Order: sequence, then C-alpha cells, then structure tokens
Amino acid sequence: MSLIVQKFGGSSVATDEKVRNVAKVITDTYKKGNNVIAVVSAQGDTTDELIEKANAINPNASKREMDVLLSAGEQISASLLAMAIEKMDFPVISLLGWQAGFSTNSVYGSARIKNIDTERLTSEIAKNNIVIVAGFQGIDKRDNITTFGRGGSDTTAVAIAAAVGADKCQIFTDVEGVFVADPRKIPTAPKLDEITYDEMLELATLGAQVLNNRSVEMAKKYNIEVEVLSSITNKPGTKIKEVIELEKMLIRGVTKDTDVSRIAVIKLPDVPGIAFKMFSKLAQKNINVDIILQSVGRDGTKDISFTVQRSHGEEAKKLLLEAFSEIDDDDIFVDNNVAKVSVVGAGMESHPAVASDMFEALYSANVNIQMIATSEIKISVLINEEDADKAVRAVYDKFFPNN
Amino acid sequence: MSLIVQKFGGSSVATDEKVRNVAKVITDTYKKGNNVIAVVSAQGDTTDELIEKANAINPNASKREMDVLLSAGEQISASLLAMAIEKMDFPVISLLGWQAGFSTNSVYGSARIKNIDTERLTSEIAKNNIVIVAGFQGIDKRDNITTFGRGGSDTTAVAIAAAVGADKCQIFTDVEGVFVADPRKIPTAPKLDEITYDEMLELATLGAQVLNNRSVEMAKKYNIEVEVLSSITNKPGTKIKEVIELEKMLIRGVTKDTDVSRIAVIKLPDVPGIAFKMFSKLAQKNINVDIILQSVGRDGTKDISFTVQRSHGEEAKKLLLEAFSEIDDDDIFVDNNVAKVSVVGAGMESHPAVASDMFEALYSANVNIQMIATSEIKISVLINEEDADKAVRAVYDKFFPNN
Repeated sequence: MSLIVQKFGGSSVATDEKVRNVAKVITDTYKKGNNVIAVVSAQGDTTDELIEKANAINPNASKREMDVLLSAGEQISASLLAMAIEKMDFPVISLLGWQAGFSTNSVYGSARIKNIDTERLTSEIAKNNIVIVAGFQGIDKRDNITTFGRGGSDTTAVAIAAAVGADKCQIFTDVEGVFVADPRKIPTAPKLDEITYDEMLELATLGAQVLNNRSVEMAKKYNIEVEVLSSITNKPGTKIKEVIELEKMLIRGVTKDTDVSRIAVIKLPDVPGIAFKMFSKLAQKNINVDIILQSVGRDGTKDISFTVQRSHGEEAKKLLLEAFSEIDDDDIFVDNNVAKVSVVGAGMESHPAVASDMFEALYSANVNIQMIATSEIKISVLINEEDADKAVRAVYDKFFPNN
Repeated sequence: MSLIVQKFGGSSVATDEKVRNVAKVITDTYKKGNNVIAVVSAQGDTTDELIEKANAINPNASKREMDVLLSAGEQISASLLAMAIEKMDFPVISLLGWQAGFSTNSVYGSARIKNIDTERLTSEIAKNNIVIVAGFQGIDKRDNITTFGRGGSDTTAVAIAAAVGADKCQIFTDVEGVFVADPRKIPTAPKLDEITYDEMLELATLGAQVLNNRSVEMAKKYNIEVEVLSSITNKPGTKIKEVIELEKMLIRGVTKDTDVSRIAVIKLPDVPGIAFKMFSKLAQKNINVDIILQSVGRDGTKDISFTVQRSHGEEAKKLLLEAFSEIDDDDIFVDNNVAKVSVVGAGMESHPAVASDMFEALYSANVNIQMIATSEIKISVLINEEDADKAVRAVYDKFFPNN
C-alpha cells in the first residue's frame, strides 16, 4: 500500500463536472489500494473574484485580511470535493491548512511554511480516510490565517509529501506534463518523461508556468519525486527528480518570457560601487534583476543595462531617479518591447556548441540579440518581443530537427 | 469606556454599500470611546448559494462537510467588513469562530457552544482593536468546524457578551425593534421599548422572527441585556431584559404563525398511555408538538389533535401510522390550512379578561376557533389560515384601540 499525494489546480475543479472528474481520479487511486491525500486550489476564478470583492471595498486592504478572505476559496473547493467523494461512497474528510497542521511565518500573502504537524493527517490516513487538504494556507504562531501566494497549492502538496514521507507526489494540471517547448506554439514538441529539479527551476523561472518554483525548490530540498500530469487524460506525465537517466536529448526546453523590461542607464560615472548600490536599492524593494550588461561608455562614463519583470519597469526607473543624483531623466530608458528566449538543459555545460548553435539559429532567422546571459544549464537571450515566437521556432528547429 | 457587542445580520452586509454602512455604525460606536466586538453573518444570500452549490454536487453531503462549506460565508463577510473599517483608518482585526475561542460539541449543523476561550478576544480589545467575529461557527474538541444553524450569529453575539462581560449587546436588523404586531400588516403598531426574555421567547416561537430563540435563552441564562435595533435608522430599539418597568401596556405582542399543521387522530382506544407513546415517538424524531387537544370520542374511543411545524406534518403522520397498529390511515388527518394567532404579555396571568377579550374580538370578526392553548404569558388560538390576518387585526384593535 502506497501513500500518494495528489494536487489539483483551480482549473481542474472549476465546474461541478470537473469536481466529479477529480473525485474519480482520487477514488480510482484509492481503489487500487493506495492512501490518498489530495490538495486542492480554489475553483476556477474564485480567487480573482474574491480579490475583486476586496478591491471594491478597500483597494489597500491589509494583507492579513486578504488572507482570511482568499483562504475561503480553498475552503469551499475542499469541502465540495469531499462531498463529491462522499457521493461515491468513499470515506473522506476535508482539512483546512491549519487543521492539516501547517505552521508558517507571519508574512501574509507569501508566507513560508515553518513546520507541518502531521498528527491529524496521519490519524485520518490510519482510519483509511481519503484526506482533502485546502491548499495554499496555514496559520502563524498567533493562529492568524496566512496564505502562500499564487501557486501555493503546489507547495502545500510537496510539503505534505515531504512531511508524511509519501511514496509519490502527483501534480495534476491541464497539460500532460513538461514539454520541450510550448505545445500551443509548437504542437510537435515532445513531452519530457523526466527532468531534473534544476532544469525545472530554470524552466519555471523562464515562464513555462507548469509548476510553482517554490514547490520545486522544496521537492529538491527533501528529494521528493514529483510528477506533473493531466487530470483529464490517463497518461504518464513528466517526473521531476534529482538525477535522470542519461538521454540523448541535450536540451530540455526552449522557452520564451515576455514578462520582461530592459532598463538602460547611460553616462554613469565610472567609479567603483555604483552598480552595487543601484542593485541593492532595487533589491530592498523586492525588484528582482535578471540579465545584467555593463559596458564602458564614452568620456570616462559607463552604461548599465538590466532586465526586470515588466510590472516593475517604471517603478525601478522612479526608484533609481530618486536615489541617485548621478542619474538624470535623460539617461535612463525603459524598454518594454523585449522578450527573453532561453534554452535549458543540464548537459549543456559540457557542450559549448549549444550556445553557438543557438546564436546561429537566431542569426539565420534574422533575429537581433540585445543581451546574453548564461548559466551552467541555460542560455538566455534578450530580443525584440515581436521576434519571440520566430526565435523559439528557429532555436527549436535547430535542436529538434526531426520533430 | 464600555465594551459593546454588536451583531449584524446577512441583509445588513448584503452589498458593498451596506458593508460600508455597518462599518460606519461600528466606528461611530468606537469613536465615542467604546470597545467594540462586532459579530457578522454571511452576506445576503451567500449561505443559500453555498447550499445550492453543495446540492448540485451531493444532495446528501455530510453535515461535517456542509459546516466547512457554510462557515466560509461568514469568513468572507468578516474579512470584507474588516477591510471596510481599515479603509476608515480604524484599528481592526477579524477572527473566525475558532480564533475567537468558540468550542462546541460535535453536532454539525446545530452545534451547541461548550466554552469560549476569551484570551484572543480580550488581548485584541486590550490593544484597542475593533474585533470582527465571524458568526455562527466554532470547532469541536477535534478541531472540526461546526456551525450553530440558522440564526446562529445571534447566539454568537450573546455568547460573546456573556463571556467577556460586555456592557451591551446590540442586535442590528432590518427592523427598528420588536413591534406589538407585524408592522408590514399593521403599520401603526407601536414598537416596544422593553420586553422580558420570556415574552421575547414566546414571540420568537410564535413567528415574530426578530431574534433567534437560542440567543434569547442564553441572554436570559446569563442575564445579558440585549437590544434589537435597526442598522439603518439611528433610533433606540427594543431592550430585552429580565424585569421591565411596569407599563400600562398589558399585551406585548399579537402574532400570527402560518408554519403550522394540525394533525387529528380519531377513534383511539381509550386506554392509558397511548398519548404519551405517540408524543414520545414524535419527540424521538425531533418533531416538536405544540398545542394538544384531547377529547372523548364516541364508543369508548378518544380523539387527539395537535399541531406541528408544517414541514413535519406528513412525516408525523407516517411515523404514527408505522408505529401504532391502533391507527389506521382513515383515522389520521393532516390539515395544513391553519394558522396560529397569539397574544403575549407578562402581565396577563393576573388579568383573566385578556382571554375573553381576545375571544370576543375573534367572534366579532367572525373567526372560528379550532383549538386554544394558554400559558402564563400567552394565549394562542388555532384558526383557518385565510382568517389569520383578519384575526390579528381584530385582536390588535381590541387591545390597542387608539393606534
């Protein structure tokens, strides 16, 4: 008998019919002699609707009260899913985050799990109950409700799998797994059977949006094998694990990310420490900087370009203008018309040809590269946004000529 | 500085505007130097909508899961109300039932409060926070969510007032208080300034529907003065207390209740114990019997008539037919075309003329009386349903000739 943690996202439980379908997936697993803990997100657009309700009352509501409000979404879906399973005559119980033992810090809206007291979970499993856990929520040490932020239900599932020592952690989504490229753009792109944690982290960061990054980090930390698969089709998905079998496929994914702005600051005095001060200023305000390019400008000055999330572009400009007398409005530019295209693959560090193959593909497709960033397992380029799909196609065709 | 508990029903927080209005009532009270604990119900039709959602998934869902689902309604309204108060720049915090310390038994759907641990409530009050408590909910000893049933937020408010030793408990509704008769039927009916617990209990049972009965019982038990008043107009309401000032007004209310069926069982053998057995059978199934009339029939048999809630009429008939071989289908009748009209007043026990005045009024209005029941503070008659409004008017005019 195995103990399996399954997670179902909001779109998987958006309608009554989908709730019944999820109930069937869970009970089919249970019928095979497994114990099941199922983590569920709020139904469909519930979270957005609750946010709208809050905004109508108070657009600057405290994050504490937002968490009380939003956690009700998972409370509703968890109880409804339990009711659907009751209807099929299986023993089932729903638990909210705090009932399932989730203790967090007090950072409302993006709380971190500190501990899971598994007493209730294990006692329900011991009674052979199917357990439905409301995802994305816990309580702090003063019993205030906290939420984990978007994608938090993935984290809930992986954390439970780690805490109870589950045999499997399955993340059900509306796609069949992790693909080498976005299957909506490149329908022939093959699905990966396996991928390493690190590769998955790079792909998630790069906008593949299959799995929340914190959950992958947690899976890596506790070495939980996670499988991403479809709640509709009954096929094996993609397994995310520490080490994967040696495969011929060098590249694990080609992605694009359009949620990016390029900020250029020119004519900075060429003195030590200015770049450091700029980026620490941005970090204080939780603005993450990605690709950075520094070049010597004319007349003893230097230019620095970097990328941030698009929603942070104007804020970053404003912050730097306020904080540095050295920077004038004329010397700082925000370009939103950019996209990041990346290839990811754990094997590429020992294959220098990957970079040149990528650049060659982009050159052949007449795509101009503005910036380049590389890590051990990825190469990213910044290009014009309108070239992004063409660039992904060209790079994909270079590495997967037969698909 | 006083500590005031205020309760706002679902219709008082049904829209954004109404939520803001309630926030104003609370903060106006706070601004006068009082501490405020406000109990809130689910918004408008939320509870009914959640029940509908559940029925679509599983019409026979367990009461445990229903309580998880329904308690989300108060969670949403409590956080939204807190946000509205935050917007007005007052210090506020929302607490769910379990956070506010409500321990109950495990009777899901109609749980009884066992204890309130006031530690969190008093510590928030000590910080001068306005506290919003989600009504109608608590947890059992295994941390399962329980709800108190319809009207449970009234009970929440009175229970908190008792537990924290509040100076006042105000129940805000969409009427201005308790009236001598239904103001929709008799617009000139005067509002009562004060009423005793016992009178209020009789009026609530009789269908006045201003205040949940359990909350009045609890207020009586702990001697909490409760005021029923409107959340819209800024007028004093009706105070419910142990002893009220002697007033000229003998009659405290004239009410009608159409949620009633009359069941007649004829030709019962005239042997001891059969009535007792019948009513204990009904009691086992939680069917409350109200007015009972027993008469000797023909041929050494007897007839028994009694009233039950209309929704229990057919069920009661079925139960009695199954349980008693002495009763044939031909000998039991359910009449739904009845109504109960009552007068209530603590003073009437020493004024025998009240009954004769009431009967005279009904006779003059040509209303036929089927059954009569009296207690120390009320007289009820069972009449045809179509005569009910006419009967209330006639009785009212008899006792309040100048209104």
